Amino acid sequence: MSVALELNSTHDPQRRSWVVSANTVGGDFPIQNLPFAVFRRRARPDTFRGGVAIGDQIVDLAALTQAAIFSGEAGAAARAGAQSTLNALMQLGPSGAHALRQALSDALSEGSAMQSVLQPCLVPQLDAEYTLPARIGDYTDFFASIHHATAVGRLFRPDNPLLPNYQWVPIGYHGRSSSIGVSGQQFHRPRGQRLPPGQTLPVVGPSARVDYELELGIFVSTGNDLGDPIPIHEAEQHIFGMCILNDWSARDLQAWEYQPLGPFLAKNFATTISPWIITLEALAPFRVPFTRRAEDPEPLDYLSSPANRAGGAIDIRIEAWLQTALMRERGADAQRLSYSSFRHSYWTVAQLLTHHTVNGCNLQPGDLLGTGTQSGPMPAEAGSLLELSVGGAHPVQVGAEENRTFLQDGDRVILKAWCERPGTVRIGFGEAAGQMLPARAG
Amino acid sequence: MSVALELNSTHDPQRRSWVVSANTVGGDFPIQNLPFAVFRRRARPDTFRGGVAIGDQIVDLAALTQAAIFSGEAGAAARAGAQSTLNALMQLGPSGAHALRQALSDALSEGSAMQSVLQPCLVPQLDAEYTLPARIGDYTDFFASIHHATAVGRLFRPDNPLLPNYQWVPIGYHGRSSSIGVSGQQFHRPRGQRLPPGQTLPVVGPSARVDYELELGIFVSTGNDLGDPIPIHEAEQHIFGMCILNDWSARDLQAWEYQPLGPFLAKNFATTISPWIITLEALAPFRVPFTRRAEDPEPLDYLSSPANRAGGAIDIRIEAWLQTALMRERGADAQRLSYSSFRHSYWTVAQLLTHHTVNGCNLQPGDLLGTGTQSGPMPAEAGSLLELSVGGAHPVQVGAEENRTFLQDGDRVILKAWCERPGTVRIGFGEAAGQMLPARAG
Repeated sequence: MSVALELNSTHDPQRRSWVVSANTVGGDFPIQNLPFAVFRRRARPDTFRGGVAIGDQIVDLAALTQAAIFSGEAGAAARAGAQSTLNALMQLGPSGAHALRQALSDALSEGSAMQSVLQPCLVPQLDAEYTLPARIGDYTDFFASIHHATAVGRLFRPDNPLLPNYQWVPIGYHGRSSSIGVSGQQFHRPRGQRLPPGQTLPVVGPSARVDYELELGIFVSTGNDLGDPIPIHEAEQHIFGMCILNDWSARDLQAWEYQPLGPFLAKNFATTISPWIITLEALAPFRVPFTRRAEDPEPLDYLSSPANRAGGAIDIRIEAWLQTALMRERGADAQRLSYSSFRHSYWTVAQLLTHHTVNGCNLQPGDLLGTGTQSGPMPAEAGSLLELSVGGAHPVQVGAEENRTFLQDGDRVILKAWCERPGTVRIGFGEAAGQMLPARAG
Repeated sequence: MSVALELNSTHDPQRRSWVVSANTVGGDFPIQNLPFAVFRRRARPDTFRGGVAIGDQIVDLAALTQAAIFSGEAGAAARAGAQSTLNALMQLGPSGAHALRQALSDALSEGSAMQSVLQPCLVPQLDAEYTLPARIGDYTDFFASIHHATAVGRLFRPDNPLLPNYQWVPIGYHGRSSSIGVSGQQFHRPRGQRLPPGQTLPVVGPSARVDYELELGIFVSTGNDLGDPIPIHEAEQHIFGMCILNDWSARDLQAWEYQPLGPFLAKNFATTISPWIITLEALAPFRVPFTRRAEDPEPLDYLSSPANRAGGAIDIRIEAWLQTALMRERGADAQRLSYSSFRHSYWTVAQLLTHHTVNGCNLQPGDLLGTGTQSGPMPAEAGSLLELSVGGAHPVQVGAEENRTFLQDGDRVILKAWCERPGTVRIGFGEAAGQMLPARAG
């Protein structure tokens, strides 16, 4: 079994923290979660450093290191995590993060003698602002939901929605690192070339079909050398953890530009991730068997292992919410657009990582893999407006007064994710929120 | 006119250097070139630092900085270039590189009083080894040769080789940064999924159709903020210079994986660039008008400017050479496979950069753009074996005893580039050489 599937005392559902807010039922950051981010205090211009969420607080790893509270592997991991990116911590592999989370889990537990020394290292999340958790060398986006691939394919090829390679190849492409931002990202409606329906000459102007895509992100921990594939039974040892990811997409730019080399300007104007990375260790209680529908072939040998079959999938609940300008004006709540789970993914995180390296491609600590839009099997579980509105044909009702085919200026999309299961404590990912501003003058 | 089109004393064809090897007729690195690389001495394990080629020597920018030979903007540029990557120098924009090259051009000129202080800063190229000239944040590859696009398209769609978007959109996609290496790179024949001809189930194993692609690379100097497009009349101010680039490609993996999101594992196992970056300033004497064939439309407004029409193209001669294992055994010379010029490119460097940012995508210093395979209008000017062998149907004679449809184990591909024109001094790019080793055991 993969280490990521094993349970230990950090998963103990009875464990409670002396940080009282961590014990709130339904909160994102109980003591069983302990995810990592990079933050600084909003009020004073101090430097960004790593932190670990506990309830409504952050354990400041720079303060923890300065106070030399942990020694050994946990102390080394805290030092690595105290930098302005988590790349050094990621490079230590899952054992580094485990040592630190184990030490923190013990020290943050109710009754721990460490409370008095740890208390000064806490920063309220309300006072924090976040930046990207890692220097992302390369960003890859996959296409791992067969439901998304089928729904989108049907819009283009009604009789033959799924291309012949889909069931065999974890389809992916390289995305843009420079335009990835953390929750709170704002971007202007992108301009570009598109071919208006029924015309033969392209026009240049603001995209009329900007969409969100509900995805998860996977951060690489230790990498591999060029030419050294990572076999599937080792794949999860190279994964640090997961976040939420919104792969904003301009559908009209995409339709005109994507053949034959794939999406480019339709995607690279912005990508928004949640600040918190949930470790694979914290996700262990939520693993589920990897299964295939009767009509789908078994994966090829290099994408198959006993551990992957037994628990390669993860039941991560995912949601997309929309808050329009009118809703903000009215003081109305955001509205949920869809709800699904990553358990429906056609490929597991281990399969994505192994496929990525089968040709010898080298991954590096801090590299980010996107899972692709995670639509579930039901139409209402679709992870994009393109799918929910069936290519823009059927507007989606939003609140009492509005509807949407694609996003409008001022729209704010909030993606959420969490895990819950009987007998465990719910853990949350926080959120990845982003907003589209009007296009700039051309 | 763009600054990159203006001539100054660094271009003076009468100028000769006291570094005698720089005055050799037909050499790559006369005093009119002065390109940048990052190097170290091979014999002692010192650190990598920037250098400038002159004849068969390198001006060591770390030594130059330590000796405080230049002051002002040239001194600041030398300090920026003395680091282990050229990103800081690139960030200064073309004026930084210009100041340093102008000062070096004067100091390296025959009769300069600086000879005695500069002489100790020279390192023989024979004693040097190179690394990547920049930390490449994002790597984008374009598809800017209509002759390549047509030839490759014809293999897939004989009646309709060119897709409708090609004549309008500078087609590009994001590539892999982590697997880019400098000349001398070796890689194992990649493994992966492919669909054997006539079959319906894929197999996994070594690629049988590994190819080279003859391209040029473009390094970004100053970048742009997310949301701020770079208009075409400013584009060349954001370009540091150009190199040679080999976009190694596994055609059988590509054919099976590329729909609908483009090339991925077929390309990301290795990319080889030349160590030397030739500045746009050095390329100024070789600019030629940007022209279109009668059957091609004029570019859309955002991709057009008077300067781009007057001299947006560059006559860079490019060649691909092959050295097989048998040739090495026989002591035979490498054989030239093809010869063309970047002047045939359908899009100019300014158009590629401007298109990349039209949607607000941010570029950063050190980002690399590939031009795509630069095939010329004649079949013999094709920049890949896929084209030369017409999809593998017509083996290419190589030396007296061999032929090739695709590359074989041990094959070494050497790409070369240079500029020459009556009334100017020839300048060269050096070479980008790389070798394919046998596949590793699966």
